[in-house]
Amino acid sequence: MPENLLKGKVGIITGALDENSIAWKTALKVKEQGGRFVLTNAPIAMRMGAINELAQECNTIVVPADATSVEDIEKLYAEAKEFLGGNFDFLLHSIGMSPNIRKGRSYGDLNYDWAMKSYDVSAISFHKMMHVAEKMDAMNEWGSIVGLSYIAAQRVYPFYTDMADAKALLESIARGYGYRYGKLKKVRVNTISQSPTKTTAGTGIGGFDSFFNFAEAMSPLGNASADACADYIVTMFSDLTRMVTMQNLFHDGGYSFTGISEEMMDQFKDL
Amino acid sequence: MPENLLKGKVGIITGALDENSIAWKTALKVKEQGGRFVLTNAPIAMRMGAINELAQECNTIVVPADATSVEDIEKLYAEAKEFLGGNFDFLLHSIGMSPNIRKGRSYGDLNYDWAMKSYDVSAISFHKMMHVAEKMDAMNEWGSIVGLSYIAAQRVYPFYTDMADAKALLESIARGYGYRYGKLKKVRVNTISQSPTKTTAGTGIGGFDSFFNFAEAMSPLGNASADACADYIVTMFSDLTRMVTMQNLFHDGGYSFTGISEEMMDQFKDL
Amino acid sequence: MPENLLKGKVGIITGALDENSIAWKTALKVKEQGGRFVLTNAPIAMRMGAINELAQECNTIVVPADATSVEDIEKLYAEAKEFLGGNFDFLLHSIGMSPNIRKGRSYGDLNYDWAMKSYDVSAISFHKMMHVAEKMDAMNEWGSIVGLSYIAAQRVYPFYTDMADAKALLESIARGYGYRYGKLKKVRVNTISQSPTKTTAGTGIGGFDSFFNFAEAMSPLGNASADACADYIVTMFSDLTRMVTMQNLFHDGGYSFTGISEEMMDQFKDL
Amino acid sequence: MPENLLKGKVGIITGALDENSIAWKTALKVKEQGGRFVLTNAPIAMRMGAINELAQECNTIVVPADATSVEDIEKLYAEAKEFLGGNFDFLLHSIGMSPNIRKGRSYGDLNYDWAMKSYDVSAISFHKMMHVAEKMDAMNEWGSIVGLSYIAAQRVYPFYTDMADAKALLESIARGYGYRYGKLKKVRVNTISQSPTKTTAGTGIGGFDSFFNFAEAMSPLGNASADACADYIVTMFSDLTRMVTMQNLFHDGGYSFTGISEEMMDQFKDL
Repeated sequence: MPENLLKGKVGIITGALDENSIAWKTALKVKEQGGRFVLTNAPIAMRMGAINELAQECNTIVVPADATSVEDIEKLYAEAKEFLGGNFDFLLHSIGMSPNIRKGRSYGDLNYDWAMKSYDVSAISFHKMMHVAEKMDAMNEWGSIVGLSYIAAQRVYPFYTDMADAKALLESIARGYGYRYGKLKKVRVNTISQSPTKTTAGTGIGGFDSFFNFAEAMSPLGNASADACADYIVTMFSDLTRMVTMQNLFHDGGYSFTGISEEMMDQFKDL
Repeated sequence: MPENLLKGKVGIITGALDENSIAWKTALKVKEQGGRFVLTNAPIAMRMGAINELAQECNTIVVPADATSVEDIEKLYAEAKEFLGGNFDFLLHSIGMSPNIRKGRSYGDLNYDWAMKSYDVSAISFHKMMHVAEKMDAMNEWGSIVGLSYIAAQRVYPFYTDMADAKALLESIARGYGYRYGKLKKVRVNTISQSPTKTTAGTGIGGFDSFFNFAEAMSPLGNASADACADYIVTMFSDLTRMVTMQNLFHDGGYSFTGISEEMMDQFKDL
Repeated sequence: MPENLLKGKVGIITGALDENSIAWKTALKVKEQGGRFVLTNAPIAMRMGAINELAQECNTIVVPADATSVEDIEKLYAEAKEFLGGNFDFLLHSIGMSPNIRKGRSYGDLNYDWAMKSYDVSAISFHKMMHVAEKMDAMNEWGSIVGLSYIAAQRVYPFYTDMADAKALLESIARGYGYRYGKLKKVRVNTISQSPTKTTAGTGIGGFDSFFNFAEAMSPLGNASADACADYIVTMFSDLTRMVTMQNLFHDGGYSFTGISEEMMDQFKDL
Repeated sequence: MPENLLKGKVGIITGALDENSIAWKTALKVKEQGGRFVLTNAPIAMRMGAINELAQECNTIVVPADATSVEDIEKLYAEAKEFLGGNFDFLLHSIGMSPNIRKGRSYGDLNYDWAMKSYDVSAISFHKMMHVAEKMDAMNEWGSIVGLSYIAAQRVYPFYTDMADAKALLESIARGYGYRYGKLKKVRVNTISQSPTKTTAGTGIGGFDSFFNFAEAMSPLGNASADACADYIVTMFSDLTRMVTMQNLFHDGGYSFTGISEEMMDQFKDL
């Protein structure tokens, strides 16, 4: 087993709601590889989640923060710097929410205030996290910032509605800030475009099972699990990927470049 | 010369500010090809523009409308349907504005309220125009909707700041609504990603000349003019492109797929 | 109906095998729009096809040519220039063949000599057609060259085997020569990536019905027909698309950017 | 420092010509992480290279093999399996050569036999390496296969001529075989698209310095070194990236998604 991939590295992990979360699994793997971190989540999500147990298991603290609030992020970073004893080497953005999806609004019937909320929570918060880090000079050189995305940023999944647009925005922000932070401090910024994943958040989307099963039938390696995603995030936080930046990296068992699988061929033969 | 490409077709053209505008030139070419249309622009832009002259030249009316206002769009469509005598075959979205760019804010120092304004004016307005069209059932079958974009949606141009994110959002909306409108009414939706263009809006962006000259030196055919763009839009409105939808179409003299030009090679030889 | 889109333009159309061919339909539409052309096909394909009828209908000649032979292309161009009375404004490359597919070889069991044949017939012939045109200075300024491609160049369709690689090669050649010919003579080069089409060549591919039905179920506008493709080619040959070059243009009813359709969702719900 | 990332893993490394080679550096890093391997190169390249020293340093053997020869690859695998005591966990394809570039032929004047040679050596050899591995069942489950590519597969770099097409072919083969090998044995296949690199092979390309300097001026992190590339390959060979397949991964300091850098802006301001 790999060892010490993240020895001496410290950072922030957002979005660990419960043990199904990609962020939760990432926390455990980062710890395993010698990294230390502070956990954070929205105050409201924390009440539902079991994040304190995770914190205990990882010998760390939880700092509640609303990722759409610049002030909250400032407070989070200040407390985290104190707890961790210095600047950050990594940030994980694993935050997304769409009131339009929650309320079952179709793409042709978006509530625009809610859409703005979707963008703010799911994408602009990523800009804010980097913006505040830059202002507070909170990242170490050669640090690594990762956001979680989904292929709906490139192709249409009708029931994903305004979250598709939010993910397109997220990936654009990764490129834009990646350029900037690269020049400023050699910090890299990437998104990982993950398979549909059976997290508590994921399964809340209408039609999730259809997405999941379809992707499973199309991907030569099957859908990537949350566990595998956490492994991949670890490599992106390590020093072995220092020159990868401004990329959207598909972690999906080959789904993104499969046009049709043999299973699908069989199914469409007799139509 | 081609004739009657748009004979009998009617629609809406936004964004004709002055004679340098792509929308202005599109209006003239659409008329030339037998199309009829209503012009619209933001009340504030109209005061600065010469759009009434254009309307006269094209035997049409101008209906002021704030494209971020669902009510204004409803009113625009109602008046246009009456003037044109029926539903629309084409819509041109040529609207973009960033308070952050106007005020010289860098990407690391965005004002987030202004960023929301950039998204709303430059991208969400495109959703709103389609949303209202759907609700009012204002498009004819096999209609064509075009939005104008820029390659900053894919690659970083540092001084383009939040407009890059707005363009990524615009293109995502084109895909999302293109899927939906295709299913509903065979309406197609595409964006055209145009070369840097010496319009009044374009040249207002800081560093525009650098963008323009760089693209000119990279493109094997040189930068595409506003005139050429208007020609291309005409083809996208015609019945000859009925099955093209959800695409972002580069209209840029080859810039998008040129890695380096011979001119650039010469320049970087001796470093 | 549009008129005179190609008035005064002359060129070469390859690949018209029978009335189902995209090239056949293109010939008829080009004629309708005032264009003139010479037809060509491989000597062996001509014996099977009805191309002479088409030639008669279009008041033109057929010059047999093996598109893998530089000498044959030279002869073709010489005869065509004489018949048409000058240089060419457009070329259509609609040529593809894979011995591996014909003989039912899987991708893991390619015969490499046959693969070379696939590349040569389906892709390198495109380079040769441009190479000879350049050498003979046979293209007019602002001419337009189009090759037909398929999305297998980007994503895997297992039964398409080495034709996928040939299409990737074809599109790369379009970019490479497009850059060159743009600089030299303002000639543009693009590929059109067409829906699975019920041509005689297409339906010969094992599993074609599955491809076709799957794409039909995924595309919001359904699969694009050969007729619609011919219309699109006409726009690409016209003067209205002069600044589009080095692009791969999807003509597929929205298939390329659809992640999942509602029909597909239904089908994968209960798995 | 990370440890044991490749503990217990064995494989094949091609293309280690001298100490500047990416493959050479990869060999050293793989060894450092606990991996074992057999080295190979073309008989002719071996005479020029210092590969035997590397073999000694890594306690391994060199098996000469022409990667275009199925027989040579069979022999290589047989000897390697014997030496390593079992099947392979990783393969590195780092092979490329264009007689057209060597002889200074421009893209408009390709020698087609040489182009076929370019494709065979630089791309089809990748298919052959996988084809033989499949036939001999020489890969372990969850093995990882990596080929080295360059962004000329996507965009035009005029002096890269037929190597651009060969790289497009290579990436297509990675997708096609990646799908197949994923289904068969959970083996993943990816290409890494590396910055221009000052290897002996790279600097042999006409205009290399221009490429290199231009990319350096465009990339926010600067060009990626051969050393950094070797690090990245190590992550792709490790178990932490098991679900990444059929991807082309840019390892280039952000070059691929930078439209223009501030340095470039300055340079093009006054034109």
